[in-house]
Amino acid sequence: MKIISNPDISKQQELLQRPQQERANVDAAVKDIIKLVQESGDQALFAFAEKFDNAKLTTLRVTEAEIEKAKSQIATELKAAIQTAYQNIYKFHEACFTREYPVVETMPGMTCWRKSLPIQKVGLYIPGGSAPLFSTVLMLAIPAKIAGNKRVILCSPTDANGNINPAVLYTANLCGVTEIYKAGGAQAIAAMTYGTESIPAVDKIFGPGNAFVTRAKELAQQQGVAIDMPAGPSEVLVIADEDANPAFVAADLLAQAEHGPDSQVILLTDSISLAEAVNEQLSIQLSTLSRKQTAEKAIDNSKTIVLDNMSACIKWSDAYAPEHLIINTTNAEEVAEQIQVAGSIFIGSYTCESLGDYASGTNHTLPTYGYARNYSGVSVDSFVNKVTYQKATAQGIKNLGPAVEIMATAEGLDAHKNAVTLRLNTLKNE
Amino acid sequence: MKIISNPDISKQQELLQRPQQERANVDAAVKDIIKLVQESGDQALFAFAEKFDNAKLTTLRVTEAEIEKAKSQIATELKAAIQTAYQNIYKFHEACFTREYPVVETMPGMTCWRKSLPIQKVGLYIPGGSAPLFSTVLMLAIPAKIAGNKRVILCSPTDANGNINPAVLYTANLCGVTEIYKAGGAQAIAAMTYGTESIPAVDKIFGPGNAFVTRAKELAQQQGVAIDMPAGPSEVLVIADEDANPAFVAADLLAQAEHGPDSQVILLTDSISLAEAVNEQLSIQLSTLSRKQTAEKAIDNSKTIVLDNMSACIKWSDAYAPEHLIINTTNAEEVAEQIQVAGSIFIGSYTCESLGDYASGTNHTLPTYGYARNYSGVSVDSFVNKVTYQKATAQGIKNLGPAVEIMATAEGLDAHKNAVTLRLNTLKNE
Repeated sequence: MKIISNPDISKQQELLQRPQQERANVDAAVKDIIKLVQESGDQALFAFAEKFDNAKLTTLRVTEAEIEKAKSQIATELKAAIQTAYQNIYKFHEACFTREYPVVETMPGMTCWRKSLPIQKVGLYIPGGSAPLFSTVLMLAIPAKIAGNKRVILCSPTDANGNINPAVLYTANLCGVTEIYKAGGAQAIAAMTYGTESIPAVDKIFGPGNAFVTRAKELAQQQGVAIDMPAGPSEVLVIADEDANPAFVAADLLAQAEHGPDSQVILLTDSISLAEAVNEQLSIQLSTLSRKQTAEKAIDNSKTIVLDNMSACIKWSDAYAPEHLIINTTNAEEVAEQIQVAGSIFIGSYTCESLGDYASGTNHTLPTYGYARNYSGVSVDSFVNKVTYQKATAQGIKNLGPAVEIMATAEGLDAHKNAVTLRLNTLKNE
Repeated sequence: MKIISNPDISKQQELLQRPQQERANVDAAVKDIIKLVQESGDQALFAFAEKFDNAKLTTLRVTEAEIEKAKSQIATELKAAIQTAYQNIYKFHEACFTREYPVVETMPGMTCWRKSLPIQKVGLYIPGGSAPLFSTVLMLAIPAKIAGNKRVILCSPTDANGNINPAVLYTANLCGVTEIYKAGGAQAIAAMTYGTESIPAVDKIFGPGNAFVTRAKELAQQQGVAIDMPAGPSEVLVIADEDANPAFVAADLLAQAEHGPDSQVILLTDSISLAEAVNEQLSIQLSTLSRKQTAEKAIDNSKTIVLDNMSACIKWSDAYAPEHLIINTTNAEEVAEQIQVAGSIFIGSYTCESLGDYASGTNHTLPTYGYARNYSGVSVDSFVNKVTYQKATAQGIKNLGPAVEIMATAEGLDAHKNAVTLRLNTLKNE
């Protein structure tokens, strides 16, 4: 990785700039796909399955028998690992979720409260391709299960034989997904946006995908369907000091780099010797990876920035707003305390990102591409609406009504005032 | 209001349809405004102030002296009313906010936690025009104060003398807004999106506005700036039974109707006599309103739907997904318990929407236009990012690492596995 030593602060924005994403070229294709799904429903999905996945489908919904078969195809040790992850993720997500908030009496006779009501219908998209992302099923379907959404729809493309990856099916079933459909890409997003004969339109769509899926989700949002968050390539920023094990740092950078050639990897350190030792380790470790070429490209686009001290590293990290932030320093917890902007933070030399990607308990669906500045990762909150309630007794409106009458008058809203005045008058007469 | 008795369920979608919003005609104008603000910064804002507000401005930031002057212009009783509202809103919003979540040890040696970190820079837009919406200042700036955002920027247009409404200034100052700027409309949104010499670019933009402001916020979102929620005209749905006071019901419908001719008002009831009595009251009360014409138009577009029983009213209300839901029935709390989809719920005959619009404690920035299906109203949560943390000890990675190795291998992600394996190997050697 290119090492940049003690750059001037004026170079910060340029050095931390993310690669531009190309979007325009997929727009027309995605709009065509959406139009066909709107017009022809299931038939369009069958045609796209044949075109993109070489699969001849005649039905879309995965049957009980297919799920049972998938269960039998998963190795016992993988099942056990998935169940461990399930338990940790469930435990942490439940602990961070508030279903009913305390009732607050803001004034005598005026009580207010708030509840989390599950979104009625949610849709989860799980990509196919080289990596069967059953871990993403865990990260989306467990919060949905805790939230209690009435319908949890999952769409995923099939292989040429018309089968969704068995680990995806096994995990979806474990997490209580209510319906699984064979549909991939922008066409799956279109189906969950507009509905087809088989696939229901949903209220909110979650999940990762390629540029086509991302664009389809953006267009779904413009139609009133909510989405989990805007998407961009995955990224990690590591803050390390001279005490960090360079092999660990290199391994963490590569774990991010193998996701794709556009993955972003940044190392911030106050130690030039660590920076150099990490580069040596990168060369050694790269040679052993099956996704070597991908990781190499990503590493070529990435940089190590050497700064004066930890305090500068913290400021540069906040300016970058990383999706994943690994803090591999002495006093890592103290450094973490000072961070203001990040998606998820991994503290200390043993806490590699892979733990959080799969099984520590936190969610791996996180804001990329600088969105950590203004979006949160997925949690149970993402699957509910927070609804407020209020109830005034006669005493309540007597106490609060006069203030509301004054404010409504000041805003020139007569009828707002009148709704209070009529009630107060009735109470005077009683 | 038109009374529709016992419609067939097949008519539900049609009867509950919201009026189409016209958007295309503002798009080009908004894009021109944004372009000018991007190109000319403050100078563009001065020009727009002259064009739209007849105001000759030479600076944009409101001074301390202007705020002091505004304070002296507000009647004592209005100040007291605003302070009452402030206290209730602060109390309720703080009670619904979690800054630090419990630390969860998901497995021995593996701890995860979550914190609410304030978004660095937020922007609040407060429209000018006929109604000076100081109540919206309360609803946006109080949650920001609790969240602790470093910079809280407020933009609002001025009158022809170059002054922002004094009640808006007084309330903004009371709520700890850090900077107030004289800018209105789509140009204010553009300034907060791209920044100008005076006005900083922000991470998230909040607040209501006309079609131009709404479109500018949508375009800001496409540039990576978060927004509070998608916007549409305000609306109320009232569920009432034969025990409801028809004068109260009519007053609540009119309070919504006076917002604008496109406001939506729906009454669901199981009592035809109540429906008729409400219509009589509407005629009587309409004649007394200063915004009579506006309210009349909105009422003309609205309907009363008479259904068989309360259970049907609940189902139709959920299908509509109202921003405001007033339940004016015997056993109103029981009805409220059964509602699955709404923005904010007002329970019982004394709880008019006006209370919540100003001062009950709940937020009045709520999802309109059916967005109650998949968005929540504004709360302190809207002003923070929820960040997750995790820390594995040596014992933690020994316990969890093997499961992660298995899952990473199954997803074909070598380098993810390797980050764990390297650490486990080091521990074996120790």
